[in-house]
Amino acid sequence: MSVNQREIGRRTLLGEIRRQQRVPRIDLSELTGISRATVTTITAELLREGLIEEVASDQGEKDSKRGRPKVDLKIRGAARLIAGAKISHKTVSLVLLDFEGRQLAHHEADLESGVLSPEDMAAVLADMLEDLAAKASMRRADVAGFGLGIAGIVDAPRGFVHWSPSLTNRNVQFGDVLEQALGLPVFLDNDANLVAMAEKSFGLGQGHSDFIVVTIESGVGMGIVINNEIYRGTRGCGAEFGHTKVHLEGALCRCGQRGCLEAYAADYALTREAMIASGEAGERRVEDILRAAKEGDEMSASIVKRAGRMFAMGLANIVNIFDPELIILAGEQMQSSHLYAEDVIEGMRKLIVQVDKAPPEVVVHKWGNLMWARGAAAYALENVSENALLEMAENVA
Amino acid sequence: MSVNQREIGRRTLLGEIRRQQRVPRIDLSELTGISRATVTTITAELLREGLIEEVASDQGEKDSKRGRPKVDLKIRGAARLIAGAKISHKTVSLVLLDFEGRQLAHHEADLESGVLSPEDMAAVLADMLEDLAAKASMRRADVAGFGLGIAGIVDAPRGFVHWSPSLTNRNVQFGDVLEQALGLPVFLDNDANLVAMAEKSFGLGQGHSDFIVVTIESGVGMGIVINNEIYRGTRGCGAEFGHTKVHLEGALCRCGQRGCLEAYAADYALTREAMIASGEAGERRVEDILRAAKEGDEMSASIVKRAGRMFAMGLANIVNIFDPELIILAGEQMQSSHLYAEDVIEGMRKLIVQVDKAPPEVVVHKWGNLMWARGAAAYALENVSENALLEMAENVA
Amino acid sequence: MSVNQREIGRRTLLGEIRRQQRVPRIDLSELTGISRATVTTITAELLREGLIEEVASDQGEKDSKRGRPKVDLKIRGAARLIAGAKISHKTVSLVLLDFEGRQLAHHEADLESGVLSPEDMAAVLADMLEDLAAKASMRRADVAGFGLGIAGIVDAPRGFVHWSPSLTNRNVQFGDVLEQALGLPVFLDNDANLVAMAEKSFGLGQGHSDFIVVTIESGVGMGIVINNEIYRGTRGCGAEFGHTKVHLEGALCRCGQRGCLEAYAADYALTREAMIASGEAGERRVEDILRAAKEGDEMSASIVKRAGRMFAMGLANIVNIFDPELIILAGEQMQSSHLYAEDVIEGMRKLIVQVDKAPPEVVVHKWGNLMWARGAAAYALENVSENALLEMAENVA
Amino acid sequence: MSVNQREIGRRTLLGEIRRQQRVPRIDLSELTGISRATVTTITAELLREGLIEEVASDQGEKDSKRGRPKVDLKIRGAARLIAGAKISHKTVSLVLLDFEGRQLAHHEADLESGVLSPEDMAAVLADMLEDLAAKASMRRADVAGFGLGIAGIVDAPRGFVHWSPSLTNRNVQFGDVLEQALGLPVFLDNDANLVAMAEKSFGLGQGHSDFIVVTIESGVGMGIVINNEIYRGTRGCGAEFGHTKVHLEGALCRCGQRGCLEAYAADYALTREAMIASGEAGERRVEDILRAAKEGDEMSASIVKRAGRMFAMGLANIVNIFDPELIILAGEQMQSSHLYAEDVIEGMRKLIVQVDKAPPEVVVHKWGNLMWARGAAAYALENVSENALLEMAENVA
Repeated sequence: MSVNQREIGRRTLLGEIRRQQRVPRIDLSELTGISRATVTTITAELLREGLIEEVASDQGEKDSKRGRPKVDLKIRGAARLIAGAKISHKTVSLVLLDFEGRQLAHHEADLESGVLSPEDMAAVLADMLEDLAAKASMRRADVAGFGLGIAGIVDAPRGFVHWSPSLTNRNVQFGDVLEQALGLPVFLDNDANLVAMAEKSFGLGQGHSDFIVVTIESGVGMGIVINNEIYRGTRGCGAEFGHTKVHLEGALCRCGQRGCLEAYAADYALTREAMIASGEAGERRVEDILRAAKEGDEMSASIVKRAGRMFAMGLANIVNIFDPELIILAGEQMQSSHLYAEDVIEGMRKLIVQVDKAPPEVVVHKWGNLMWARGAAAYALENVSENALLEMAENVA
Repeated sequence: MSVNQREIGRRTLLGEIRRQQRVPRIDLSELTGISRATVTTITAELLREGLIEEVASDQGEKDSKRGRPKVDLKIRGAARLIAGAKISHKTVSLVLLDFEGRQLAHHEADLESGVLSPEDMAAVLADMLEDLAAKASMRRADVAGFGLGIAGIVDAPRGFVHWSPSLTNRNVQFGDVLEQALGLPVFLDNDANLVAMAEKSFGLGQGHSDFIVVTIESGVGMGIVINNEIYRGTRGCGAEFGHTKVHLEGALCRCGQRGCLEAYAADYALTREAMIASGEAGERRVEDILRAAKEGDEMSASIVKRAGRMFAMGLANIVNIFDPELIILAGEQMQSSHLYAEDVIEGMRKLIVQVDKAPPEVVVHKWGNLMWARGAAAYALENVSENALLEMAENVA
Repeated sequence: MSVNQREIGRRTLLGEIRRQQRVPRIDLSELTGISRATVTTITAELLREGLIEEVASDQGEKDSKRGRPKVDLKIRGAARLIAGAKISHKTVSLVLLDFEGRQLAHHEADLESGVLSPEDMAAVLADMLEDLAAKASMRRADVAGFGLGIAGIVDAPRGFVHWSPSLTNRNVQFGDVLEQALGLPVFLDNDANLVAMAEKSFGLGQGHSDFIVVTIESGVGMGIVINNEIYRGTRGCGAEFGHTKVHLEGALCRCGQRGCLEAYAADYALTREAMIASGEAGERRVEDILRAAKEGDEMSASIVKRAGRMFAMGLANIVNIFDPELIILAGEQMQSSHLYAEDVIEGMRKLIVQVDKAPPEVVVHKWGNLMWARGAAAYALENVSENALLEMAENVA
Repeated sequence: MSVNQREIGRRTLLGEIRRQQRVPRIDLSELTGISRATVTTITAELLREGLIEEVASDQGEKDSKRGRPKVDLKIRGAARLIAGAKISHKTVSLVLLDFEGRQLAHHEADLESGVLSPEDMAAVLADMLEDLAAKASMRRADVAGFGLGIAGIVDAPRGFVHWSPSLTNRNVQFGDVLEQALGLPVFLDNDANLVAMAEKSFGLGQGHSDFIVVTIESGVGMGIVINNEIYRGTRGCGAEFGHTKVHLEGALCRCGQRGCLEAYAADYALTREAMIASGEAGERRVEDILRAAKEGDEMSASIVKRAGRMFAMGLANIVNIFDPELIILAGEQMQSSHLYAEDVIEGMRKLIVQVDKAPPEVVVHKWGNLMWARGAAAYALENVSENALLEMAENVA
């Protein structure tokens, strides 16, 4: 067995144990196609490293042959401590997980401003992480990895932020800034990608190798899962669903271009259209517009309907390109309900290529900020896990 | 080494030998990470099966140790015979390849009608395949696999055609119809996917794991290569670039919907707009419109410019979703030159998310029908190769 | 009574007699506000000139005072002979009227080509006019004035054609060319204006001082009647309804610009969209599309619906500008029925400024080519009448 | 001479004297075509009524025959007192004119609210009119007629307001409400019509019988002058230029419909688009956007450019319908300069029907609120003048 093969074996077995949660050693060979001998060797290594542990079998039976209690293998929660966070408009949500993925603590804190310098943001996050750890009677230094979701255009593998509405600067090596401030490995990604990660790890995407997550918050985001992996594009500029164009020279978008889907479907698109109806009374919130539409106000209904039609068109383009098995519409707030409406989904179905086979399933998943943070933690967990295996390989070599 | 591992090993090594074209056995271990012993075992099997062969090393040197001439391993061309074909509007192009991928013969023949019943189309293809084989002094029965590219919506893994402009029926298990008529394994796919396959196998996509191919023929197609694989979507309805919507309730498309990119950028979109300018003189061809535009005719120029702007918008949406490293614009005819024009590409660049990093590379690849057929053959070759390995596994087991 | 006043008096009285058809001299003073003495003087002049005549009163009563039969005044039909013609795509329709407006003869003849030089067109019309006169046992030289309706942009007062689809040349002083070829006064106008003239003289516009006529033939035209006069604009380029823009950079129009109403609602707009559906079977006619739409063909229905929506938008713009009492939709062919449909008119009503008062009345008037020719004759009659009065003034002076 | 003729004669002569400002009695016969005897009779009547007066001739010469100083006739300023007012968003501007049209006083006052009940608005105007009169040492009761311009949809002949942004109620017989509150004749019209009246009476429209005025304030309005008369449409809903549609289902307008020109070109359309660029800093004013655009801000430039393109399209539609000799773009504020820009006018020229003759002249007239009020006064003057003649007729009869 080459070095290469052993590494692949470790990754495969650790992954399988995580997937199975609890699994008898004897089943792993069949589940993975790795020979029993190799399974024995590798699981011994993983036990020695403390990444997994033996527990009494669920079934409580004794091994008929050897007479001692059957054991299952499982991930050892105490092996590593993982943190995840999501920067929202003016708040940060954080969670602390153990290596098994169990939530140990969570924390929410306000930002004094929606836009900070990278250094200030890093300092603020360091404090928050300290507070988070304290809630589980830990210290920040105990954390093995920190996953962070941030709005904007992020080159995740490089930890590089091309642009984020939360940062004063463009083109920031924000991963490095954070690692320096926090003193621990940081795994940074676009927030929509981390929702996809969350859906895949513990949400509606479990058991699906290929699916699309569309997030609706103040903007419109997308996470693409292909072959069990987040698809990010070459420069980290993929999945920019909100900036796909639905109208040549259409409405003005925050990005400065015209005709972006966001400019029709995002929060600001609705409040902007509603401005004229509100007269001197100031800006109306999306909730107000939705309520007015439901109560029969024609102008509000027109605003909501149009956002829905454009959103349906954007979704249809995604289906026409990906033909996914599953689309998850994920949003934290009730205020996006108009985009989840059945007539919007039906509108999408009319705009996709028509074949005599059911269109992709579309499911709606409304959740809170904490789930975004858990997605960030899941991303960190994946990377911390990988790093642990790389360390083992180096130790062995 | 488990059965599973042995199969993976065979696939890996056969693939590596194909990629390297000629390679000393000794290099394979390093190239693949498979142990020398395993390499020796597996290559012996492949030699025995006749899938690869030994040839004198290019360098003509002798093995310093053993004193006998150094040998390279290579794919054995005679191992299998592969055919590929592409159904165009009223012609079929075919190529015959050996197992190394060398072209042994090609053939082009007319269809008496642009639309045939599945059975008639299969019968016609059977005759053409016979003629093709004859050109290389072979018979149809010698062919190990037949790849076919057809326009329309194809569920490739199932060999199922949801709809094709070349067939009278919808929802045809056309792969089965063909296999029955031809008496050999058939591998069917959407034609644009096979262009992507061709680009990946022996075109501009070589060495790229992720890229997008946009084909411009009478319609507008797309092939998506992600992680070295063609991405097809769940139902075979992915990559329908021509039917992504660029205008809500816009121009009427052949598909019956409105606002599809095709309805602005395809051949028929141009001739349709030009109709009014031609008066009673009948329909003008795309070539005529392009020439007139170049010669300063304002109406023609307006037609061409608009097609280009909409195409740029469609391309920008693809970039905003995939952020690919490379986009290949592939078309067989000079008549699509207006969509390849620099100002169209520049238009796309203005509509994508702006970051301080170079936009995706866009290259233009003009080629003939034969290359589409070669893409189909490449797809068949991949499958025939896989089948050969499966047979080995069964023989061994 | 000044010269000026006498001329105004003659015009007023001749007009009133025409309007009343038959009227006792004694009523004219009350109807016009002109003193009895002046009425007596002027009617005597008109009788002497042969423009009017006395006829026995309808009521057949005798004048109680003077004991002689009561007489009415009426226009003298034999006073002048008037011809009118309308050039359609490949035919010309002509009518011959007497000075009372009674139709003496009509004639239809084919053109050998849809587009002729001004001189050839004039020669052809001279022959046709000869044939028309012959049908009433007259000669062309007996005709006092010839009214002609032609598609295109016509500066009517100058007899100047900026452009017409029926003529090879632009910028033709076509009135002069015709007068030379015909040897008689010619009164030229845009055909839609002459439909307005016809509606006002003997159609649905009788009794309305202000209304709009929209003509739907191969193109879309408009005639505007304000204060009982055709409104033509400064250069003869007014009322170009078909070229009002309904979409910035929209569909290509025959005029070379984009987004004109015609490019969505005219015959060619429908056949153009339908082209894609017809495949190789060649162009479908509008009638075919309308029938298919009625029979449930979705694509045809989509074509028809869109034309109607755009037409409704164009109509709404006219209402928003003119707020007319009455809109007459005038077309000769059944093939425009989709634009007259109730849902189109309803669509218009939704797009106009909403006040708590009934929207303008919209009536549909389907008629034949002859009515267009009668409109041309009515225009000529008005001018011949005016010329007769001018001659009288000169004779007197 | 009938009663009717005498009334026409009075109207003609009073109008001619007003037009000539000063004119010898002897010239009036030639100028109007009315006999010398009648001129003598009628001018004597007008002098007796005090509507005109004799003044020494400009030339100061003596009548050669009679030996007494030559006299001119002129309007007698003291004959009537006229007031005009324009209700702007939160201010009212008023002017006081004498019967010659000379401005005696002006006044501006704030409204406590932009929207008032008809009764409150009438009460406020009564006070303001008192203040205005006081500035000329007069009292409100001395005023012979009050002209008022108000934004919205006004049926001027009926003094009926379908809707106005300045009034709380729809469908108000506002003319009656005002007459009751003010105790004097009130002449009410849409404000844009009164700008047209002002242009015709003492602005750039003098000497033009047919022209279009486009007003740009917070909304977009239009006044149509045809044959020296304001054209208002049947229900007072004509000339609603701001609500002509430039895009089917386009941007939302204040009127609740979509695609109105106003929704792209009015003040609120610009500030609405700019909202997204301003982030949390609140709404930007039009002036700020224009300045930023000039200083190179791309997003602001995009906003301004789009408003200009849509405005050009709207203007082109007006030209295609009216083909006017002259278009006057009239706005009070510098903030509309982007819509007056040469490239907007040039854009319009490209969208109109192309003939080989110069397009309509477009002139820009920037003026203050007072000029709107003067337009209102001019409208009142016209009506007061007419009423004076009617009184004369009754006195005589």
